[in-house]
Amino acid sequence: MVFDFGTLVASLNRLSTSDHQSVVSINLFVALICACIIIGHLLEENRWMNESITALVIGLCTGVVILLISGGKNSHILVFSEDLFFIYLLPPIIFNAGFQVKKKSFFRNFSTIMLFGAVGTLISFIIISFGATSIFKKWNIGNLEIGDYLAIGAIFSATDSVCTLQVLSQDETPLLYSLVFGEGVVNDATSVVLFNAVQNFDLSHINTSKALELVGNFLYLFASSTILGVATGLLSAYIIKKLYFGRHSTDREVAIVILMAYLSYMLAELFYLSAILTVFFSGIVMSHYTWHNVTESSRVTTKHAFATLSFIAEIFIFLYVGMDALDMEKWRFVSDSPQLSLQVSSILLGLVLVGRAAFVFPLSFLSNLMKKSPEERISFNQQIIIWWAGLMRGAVSMALAYNQFTRGGHTQLRANAIMITSTITVVLFSTGVRYLNFFFDKISGINNSIRKMQNLQDMAFELTKKSLANYTNYLSQS
Amino acid sequence: MVFDFGTLVASLNRLSTSDHQSVVSINLFVALICACIIIGHLLEENRWMNESITALVIGLCTGVVILLISGGKNSHILVFSEDLFFIYLLPPIIFNAGFQVKKKSFFRNFSTIMLFGAVGTLISFIIISFGATSIFKKWNIGNLEIGDYLAIGAIFSATDSVCTLQVLSQDETPLLYSLVFGEGVVNDATSVVLFNAVQNFDLSHINTSKALELVGNFLYLFASSTILGVATGLLSAYIIKKLYFGRHSTDREVAIVILMAYLSYMLAELFYLSAILTVFFSGIVMSHYTWHNVTESSRVTTKHAFATLSFIAEIFIFLYVGMDALDMEKWRFVSDSPQLSLQVSSILLGLVLVGRAAFVFPLSFLSNLMKKSPEERISFNQQIIIWWAGLMRGAVSMALAYNQFTRGGHTQLRANAIMITSTITVVLFSTGVRYLNFFFDKISGINNSIRKMQNLQDMAFELTKKSLANYTNYLSQS
Repeated sequence: MVFDFGTLVASLNRLSTSDHQSVVSINLFVALICACIIIGHLLEENRWMNESITALVIGLCTGVVILLISGGKNSHILVFSEDLFFIYLLPPIIFNAGFQVKKKSFFRNFSTIMLFGAVGTLISFIIISFGATSIFKKWNIGNLEIGDYLAIGAIFSATDSVCTLQVLSQDETPLLYSLVFGEGVVNDATSVVLFNAVQNFDLSHINTSKALELVGNFLYLFASSTILGVATGLLSAYIIKKLYFGRHSTDREVAIVILMAYLSYMLAELFYLSAILTVFFSGIVMSHYTWHNVTESSRVTTKHAFATLSFIAEIFIFLYVGMDALDMEKWRFVSDSPQLSLQVSSILLGLVLVGRAAFVFPLSFLSNLMKKSPEERISFNQQIIIWWAGLMRGAVSMALAYNQFTRGGHTQLRANAIMITSTITVVLFSTGVRYLNFFFDKISGINNSIRKMQNLQDMAFELTKKSLANYTNYLSQS
Repeated sequence: MVFDFGTLVASLNRLSTSDHQSVVSINLFVALICACIIIGHLLEENRWMNESITALVIGLCTGVVILLISGGKNSHILVFSEDLFFIYLLPPIIFNAGFQVKKKSFFRNFSTIMLFGAVGTLISFIIISFGATSIFKKWNIGNLEIGDYLAIGAIFSATDSVCTLQVLSQDETPLLYSLVFGEGVVNDATSVVLFNAVQNFDLSHINTSKALELVGNFLYLFASSTILGVATGLLSAYIIKKLYFGRHSTDREVAIVILMAYLSYMLAELFYLSAILTVFFSGIVMSHYTWHNVTESSRVTTKHAFATLSFIAEIFIFLYVGMDALDMEKWRFVSDSPQLSLQVSSILLGLVLVGRAAFVFPLSFLSNLMKKSPEERISFNQQIIIWWAGLMRGAVSMALAYNQFTRGGHTQLRANAIMITSTITVVLFSTGVRYLNFFFDKISGINNSIRKMQNLQDMAFELTKKSLANYTNYLSQS
């Protein structure tokens, strides 16, 4: 029953000189995060830059410096730890996403969001897994098993929702914002659920019952995680309402909200559920019920404290990704065959593009069929933005890739090293070109073809609607 | 340059079943902290109970349960880690103390506070070290060196300032509050400085130059730590003033304040200064300058976020102390000679009482001599309250004791085990009887003798004042 944190952290013993390095590392990291915030703020006018990009660039630069100091040995001051990511950095990001989401437009578009987030991710997962399997099997990459290919599907189906939203505005384009944001969060959860399902199943021989079991497992995780999140959120609201009783105790309220939010995440981990989904729904319920039962100052505090924690965690991750991008251990394998690595990265990027297109357009079409008023429909232009906005791959992809292809932050196998470096390349590339959508609506050539496609889809839409109406008529007459 | 957090935390790997225990531990701890807050709140009407006592009691109960489950092997789920304490739990507590202190009365009484906090702690340190050396050397305790005795002096000179204040009210007794609070914080810093000085010096043969070197070291640490804290605070104020520039960025502001506060602490650690003093002064400067440059919502957020973090950290420590109090490994040595252990604890308690009396009364007398208006003087009644309020020993004592007498949370030597258990006993006892001051002013017998002592001290005061005036007269005439 001993959580051996003591002996673990004892090796970074504070007072002994030998482990003074850990203090140096913490100092460096905190100072770099400060630098990212300041530089990111100074460059705010520039739409091409923001904290995340700054963190990536600063991380890269620091990586270069460390690489030079250490004589080309390593480029990071922190070996990637899945636990650091999943136990400390991810919970505030996802909870904050749930806490700050505009519930009204989230629930109005709930069916579309679920369609995109769950079904869409599944489609993208299948296409990427299938594509990767059929292409990479012929190449001389190394020993990748079916589980690895499925993992690749899950890794590259995880969009970087939080980061993406810095381009869209919640006030200017409310429909797009809620769609992309909601999809991103449900997508996060789905791809982690998929990833866990893939890791826990014996995939050497798949048959129908196995596939059904996977779907069942997925549905069970989805339902139970959501229920746990909602239950914790409601419990916190009940406790705070009972506790409040006319007394003034802002700190206690804030403490209870923070602890219950974290507890929901850790409880989900305890029961092997999807902690991300749990904490997201707990965030939604808490902002809807708990938040209205606390004092005014608690409201301000929780709102900004969660946003700040999430903000710091994000910067930390990007800073780390930037530093780790130069890790020699991984690139050593790649340097033997730079062309192959580039090909793998391009293929993966292509698969991501195709996988996303394969669900955004058909599912938007489906969703439009269900909507009555034309304003609620997703125009073709908006579909393109949704498709494009969701192409970024970020922290979740990185974490999943590290989980699948490394052991304790280190890579020994060639195939694994190639997959890690390809993930880094895709993340860096997709984060780098994301600001192209700023130009998107300025290029008239593209705009013309978009208009043509819009007309085409409108025609298809009317046709389908008419034939559906005819069919319903026919059914009611017969 | 590798901060090996990865491999460190990798052993509590999230996804593998074998290390599911760490998830269990975190769940248990978070749930227990929630329980402490709720129960502490429900018992608020009762002046005998509060969150800290509740945490101690719940910790003890949980310890019993774990002890029964583990078959008498261990009682805690978390091996005590100095790093956990010094890197994560202590900074928010001390920063918050500096951030929330009423600066006006703090600086008005600054000389008295410094007198109590620095000189007083030194006196207490000397008396306790000397007393422990002369008494324990004759007893059959085990192998304790001169460094150990000096460490005992430092350990038991550290008062539990934060906890103490739950008895005093900042509005009802502003002078007492600022004195006890201010003294407590400076005391914390002083005893840690003393402790570090004791640990880093070769104390096998002390001579005058060594003693002077110690004093010089102490003064250097004190000055440089304060300067670093003030500098970081001012830097944060400057950055935020520059950054603000009419833009709205609450999260960035809050992030910068939190990160700079933590950075000040870690920088002090980096340069082997007193991080506690640094972060305390950085807290004072930040609340005085930075806080007034941020937006209204940032003000509310930082104020409550720091208070909440400090609150959670305190509960965590008490919960842990409660659990650890039942650790069999330590009591095994003691069970061979329960009488000896009891005697050691009583002697230490006695020394704490004497050591505190030896500086509170003389130094109050000195401080009164410097004050012009009679309202600013500390009455004898108030002196008794100061003496009594500062008797509690808490988390800092525990942490220092663990640092001196354990290796990685474990105790092998008999003498060390006795010192640890005695520290636990003194902390538990002093925290337990602290609420007796609630009764203090109700017992008329004590009140009578206080009055007599007050008259006695007043006479001595007038006498000294008169003779000082005569002396000054004499000097000016001659």
